[in-house]
Amino acid sequence: MRNIKLCIISVGNDEQSKIYMKLKKKKCEELGIECEIISFDENISKDIIIKKIDELNSNRSVTGIIVQLPLPNNYDAQEILDSVDEKKDVDGFTTNNLGRLLIGKPLIIPATPRGIMQILEDNKIELEGKHSVIIGRSNIVGKPIALLLLQKNCTVTICHSKTKDLAYFTRQADILVSSVGKKNLITKDMVKEGAVVIDVGKDIDYENVKPKCSFITPPFGSVGKMTIQSLIKNLEDFKHEDSFSYYE
Amino acid sequence: MRNIKLCIISVGNDEQSKIYMKLKKKKCEELGIECEIISFDENISKDIIIKKIDELNSNRSVTGIIVQLPLPNNYDAQEILDSVDEKKDVDGFTTNNLGRLLIGKPLIIPATPRGIMQILEDNKIELEGKHSVIIGRSNIVGKPIALLLLQKNCTVTICHSKTKDLAYFTRQADILVSSVGKKNLITKDMVKEGAVVIDVGKDIDYENVKPKCSFITPPFGSVGKMTIQSLIKNLEDFKHEDSFSYYE
Repeated sequence: MRNIKLCIISVGNDEQSKIYMKLKKKKCEELGIECEIISFDENISKDIIIKKIDELNSNRSVTGIIVQLPLPNNYDAQEILDSVDEKKDVDGFTTNNLGRLLIGKPLIIPATPRGIMQILEDNKIELEGKHSVIIGRSNIVGKPIALLLLQKNCTVTICHSKTKDLAYFTRQADILVSSVGKKNLITKDMVKEGAVVIDVGKDIDYENVKPKCSFITPPFGSVGKMTIQSLIKNLEDFKHEDSFSYYE
Repeated sequence: MRNIKLCIISVGNDEQSKIYMKLKKKKCEELGIECEIISFDENISKDIIIKKIDELNSNRSVTGIIVQLPLPNNYDAQEILDSVDEKKDVDGFTTNNLGRLLIGKPLIIPATPRGIMQILEDNKIELEGKHSVIIGRSNIVGKPIALLLLQKNCTVTICHSKTKDLAYFTRQADILVSSVGKKNLITKDMVKEGAVVIDVGKDIDYENVKPKCSFITPPFGSVGKMTIQSLIKNLEDFKHEDSFSYYE
């Protein structure tokens, strides 16, 4: 074991969440990282969840804490996320860590956006002055990736469910990042010749769009794989942060 | 007096800052709000500034604290801003308050963006589904106004100094917000017929652009005036916040 321990707080019975949590646990264990899933019933009081998180915050053996999203609708998710110590917040979803991202001095970058930036870097995709179009404005993917691409000197457009004539915007994209979760939302005619396409939400009509792209991520295995790798990097970054008083 | 007191921390001798501070003080006094400007030499240690801010944080008679920007280059401005209690942060520039803005649950909205949203509202400008183009990506104007317009269901594009072919983007704007600080950056040919134009940086060739616009703010007196009004509203909001323990 490597003195890294991840705890995942799970509330309720969302089937997709269970799959993601298993994937995280499996990946951690492959790498010799301890991973504990702490499960609560979906009607547990928020105070009990927050009390548990407080315990994990002060437990020196725990270096990373994830609150698995989505939480059932009866909770204020941000309130629970914000109870995680920002230096164990390996997802980067606390208000303060998102604020640091906004001001361009992140302590941690949420795993999916970090994974996307890694894919762009690994594939030597030039960003400066390029027009990036992001579809989706979530706090955990859309807004963070917009901020990161902005910091890399892209001109950035953010589209969403209320955007009129989505194709008008997507056709302008040098770099298109789609994080909606709607199969075949993006068809061949909506993509510019030579575009770079990152499919977070499995939104792209891959077979037909691919021939137009200079680079495209396949719907399975690419962004998801990079997200898990980024989560592991986040765990390792927090482990190695020397300034944390509780590792003295 | 109205039990509202603003303290403004001033470091160094920036002439423009002095003008802004005087304006704020004058406006406060007109409204019966106490306003104290606390000045430091430009080489004072950051610890002394932060110690002063700590004192103001715990002083019950002080309800709002501003660190006048820009600070001289030898300071980490964000570190000093972040020493302000988030419930006295009437500028809304602390990391945590900017994080709240990102997640769409602001405690406070920075004065200039709040003023812009007020101008749009007062003039009944429809936002949903409109394409807003923001020029400038500062943490205190560009990024906050982008997030606020996004929350009002605009499609939002953020341009900046590295944007290639700025006119290509500005010509698409239903709503154009320019916050660069470069006279006549935006000329007539760069604006769409019928656009709404908000001139934060005095960037617009006003006389020539005006005839094309359905609405435009003049370079003087509009956004600036609304910014001061929004600052006063922020001061009043913090005064009236019942949940603050130090007003018990």
